[in-house]
Amino acid sequence: MIWTREIEHKNKYPNANVISLGIGDTTEPLPDVVALSMANYARKLSTPKGYRGYGAEQGCKALRKAIAETVYKDIGIKDSEVFVSDGAQGDICRLQLLFGSNMSVAVQDPTFPAYVDSSVIIGQTGDVNRESGSYQKIEYMACGPHNSFFPDLSKTGRTDIIFFCSPNNPTGHAASFEQLEQLVQFAQENGSIIVYDSAYAVYIKDGRPRSIYEVPGARKVAIEVSSFSKIAGFTGVRLGWTVVPEELLYSNGFPVIKDYNRVVCTCFNGASRISQAGGLACLSSEGFKAVLSLVDYYKENAEILLETFKSVGLRAYGGENAPYLWVHFPGSNSWDVFNEILEKTHIITVPGSGFGPAGKEFIRVTAFGHRENILEASKRLRSFLS
Amino acid sequence: MIWTREIEHKNKYPNANVISLGIGDTTEPLPDVVALSMANYARKLSTPKGYRGYGAEQGCKALRKAIAETVYKDIGIKDSEVFVSDGAQGDICRLQLLFGSNMSVAVQDPTFPAYVDSSVIIGQTGDVNRESGSYQKIEYMACGPHNSFFPDLSKTGRTDIIFFCSPNNPTGHAASFEQLEQLVQFAQENGSIIVYDSAYAVYIKDGRPRSIYEVPGARKVAIEVSSFSKIAGFTGVRLGWTVVPEELLYSNGFPVIKDYNRVVCTCFNGASRISQAGGLACLSSEGFKAVLSLVDYYKENAEILLETFKSVGLRAYGGENAPYLWVHFPGSNSWDVFNEILEKTHIITVPGSGFGPAGKEFIRVTAFGHRENILEASKRLRSFLS
Repeated sequence: MIWTREIEHKNKYPNANVISLGIGDTTEPLPDVVALSMANYARKLSTPKGYRGYGAEQGCKALRKAIAETVYKDIGIKDSEVFVSDGAQGDICRLQLLFGSNMSVAVQDPTFPAYVDSSVIIGQTGDVNRESGSYQKIEYMACGPHNSFFPDLSKTGRTDIIFFCSPNNPTGHAASFEQLEQLVQFAQENGSIIVYDSAYAVYIKDGRPRSIYEVPGARKVAIEVSSFSKIAGFTGVRLGWTVVPEELLYSNGFPVIKDYNRVVCTCFNGASRISQAGGLACLSSEGFKAVLSLVDYYKENAEILLETFKSVGLRAYGGENAPYLWVHFPGSNSWDVFNEILEKTHIITVPGSGFGPAGKEFIRVTAFGHRENILEASKRLRSFLS
Repeated sequence: MIWTREIEHKNKYPNANVISLGIGDTTEPLPDVVALSMANYARKLSTPKGYRGYGAEQGCKALRKAIAETVYKDIGIKDSEVFVSDGAQGDICRLQLLFGSNMSVAVQDPTFPAYVDSSVIIGQTGDVNRESGSYQKIEYMACGPHNSFFPDLSKTGRTDIIFFCSPNNPTGHAASFEQLEQLVQFAQENGSIIVYDSAYAVYIKDGRPRSIYEVPGARKVAIEVSSFSKIAGFTGVRLGWTVVPEELLYSNGFPVIKDYNRVVCTCFNGASRISQAGGLACLSSEGFKAVLSLVDYYKENAEILLETFKSVGLRAYGGENAPYLWVHFPGSNSWDVFNEILEKTHIITVPGSGFGPAGKEFIRVTAFGHRENILEASKRLRSFLS
C-alpha cells in the first residue's frame, strides 16, 4: 500500500520534505466567487426566506440547465438528461446498480480502479487470477504506447458495458475524434453501452473531443460521467453529474434514462444544495473564467513535469491534455521504481501496476500541487534521474 | 401518484391555499450557529490556509468522534464504527451493495418504501404480486394497532436481513425496550442482520431506546443508519451516518465492518466537507441546544395534530415519539380518504397503501411544517371530520 510506505518513509526520514505527486487531489483555493456563493447560500439557510429542504434527486433545474448549456454547448444535451450528483465515484456505483450482476464489462488496461472494484462488488467479474490480479470475466483492453493508447477493437471481445476514460486516468491520453468514432461504432455493432468518464475533459487543449457526444451516434450508445472535482477543485465539496441521453435504449427498446432516474430517486437524495450553489457559480461567466485559470495553473504544472522527464531522456505520456503523466521505465517493476524514487528524492508517485497488468513498467505522476512543490520535485527528479 | 393529484388539484382550485402534510420535509430555518459554521467553512475554501481537497471516505475524525460521543453517549460506540455519509437513503443502497442479490429480506408492513425499492433494484425480491403489490421473496412483518405495531416474531420467517425503522416511518411508533430485546434475540437465533433506521430517534420523549445499541447483544446483530435530516433540518444539506459494530460478523467469522469500509471507499468519496462542518456545529453544546429546540417545535406540531384527530373521534397513532401520525379510517380505502381530504380541505396527506398492504385503511400525516399552516390545517380538519 502506498500510504503505509509513505508512513514508513516519514518515520525513517522525519526531517525530509516529502512531496506527494501521488493521489490526484486538487491543492489550490477555490475562486472567491465560488466560495462566496456557497457561503451566502449556507448563511441564508438560517433565514425563513432562504431555508430549503429536500431538492430534486436529479439536481436543481438551474444547475442541470447550466451544465447542459455550458459544458455541452452546441452538443445538444437536454437539461433533463443531466443528473447532478455528489461525484463521479458515486455515479459509477449507481450505474452498476442499474446494470446488475449479469452484465459483462470491459475496461481499459491500465484503468482507474473504481470501475473494476465496483464490478467486483456488484458481482460481474468472476474469479481473480492470483498471479496477474486480473478477473476472469472482465475484458481488459490493453492501451499503451504500442497502440497510441487506444485498444485494438478487432481483438476486443463483445461486452455489455465498456468503461472508457478520456483523458485517461492514469495514462493522461486523450482519445482522438477518430478513436472515439471507432469506439462508438464498435458499441453500435455490439449493442454495448459505453460509460464514458470525462472527469478531466477540461484539461484538453488541442481540440480533441471533450465529450463522447461530439461523435455522431454516441447518444444511442453512451452514458457520460463527469465531475466538478478536477474542473473547480471540488474534491472536498462533492459535485458531479451523469448524462443519460433519451435515445439510449436497452435491447428491448426501454429507455435507459427511465431506469437510471429510478435508481437515482431510490438510492440518492440529491447533492448538497450548498455544493450545487457552488456548481452554479462555477458555470457563471465570471466563475467559469476563474475556474479555467485554476485549470491553467495545473496545466502549467503538467508542462513542467513533462519537460523534466523528457530532459532526462525518459518517455512520459499524458500531461498535455490531462493532469496526469504516465512515465515509462522499460524493463523495470513499477513498485521498485516507486520505492527508489521515494527513497532517493522523497517524492511519492503511484506504481503503475496498481492500475492493471499493463502498468507494470510505469509510474503515474500527478500535476496537482502547489507550484513551489512541483518546481522542487522537478529539481530533485532531474538530479536523481539524469 | 400524489404529486400528479396535487397538480390537478391546484389547477382545479387555483386560489386555494393548499397545505402539504404529505412529504416529510423540514421547513424551519437552520440555527444560526450551524449555518454560520458552514458559511465560514465554505468562505475559507478560497484561502490557501482554509482550502481542503478529498477527505476520508468514512468522514472526518472530529465528526465521527462527535457522533460517537454525543448521539451514542454511554452506549460505547467507537469513532471508527461510525461512517459519515450524505444521508440515510444512500447508506441503505450502499448496504444493499454489501449484501448483494442473494440475501433474503424482511420489512415492517407498512414500511418506508426505500428498503423494498432498493431490494428490487439489487434483485432480492423475486416477482411482484400484481394485486397486492407485494414481492414474493420479501417477508412482510405486519405492524398495526392489533399487535402494538410490533411484528409477531413467532410467525415471522427467517431472513438474512431485517429492515426495522423506529420511530417508524410511516406509523410513528417507537419500539419499546422489550420489543427491541425480542427483535435482537430473534436476529441472534436466526443469524440475521438488523438494519435499524433511527432517523427519527431524537423525537422520542418517553424514554424508549433511541438506538438499537441500548439493547444488550445488539452490537453482534445490528447496523444502525441515521441522519441529520430530521435532527437539524439537513434535508437539503445532506448528512447522515451508519454504525457498523466490530462484533458484527458474517457466518464465516469475517467482520462486516471491513466489507462495509470497502464498499464505502469504492462507491463513495465522503460527504461534502461543508455539510460535515455543519454536522459538527450541530453537535457542539450551543448547536445541540439549538437543534433540539427545532425538534421541539415539530413535536408541538405533532401534538396539535394528534389532538385534532382525537377531538373528532379518530384513532391516530404515532405523533408522540415521532414527527408522523398514522390515522386510521376503519373500513375505508386510503386513496379515497386522501382524495376526499384534499378535495374538501385542500390538505395533502399520504395514502397509507403506498407503504404496504397493511396501510390500506390509514393516511400518514407529517408534523413538519410552519406553525401557522399546522394550525390552519387543524382548523380545517376539525371542521371537515367532525
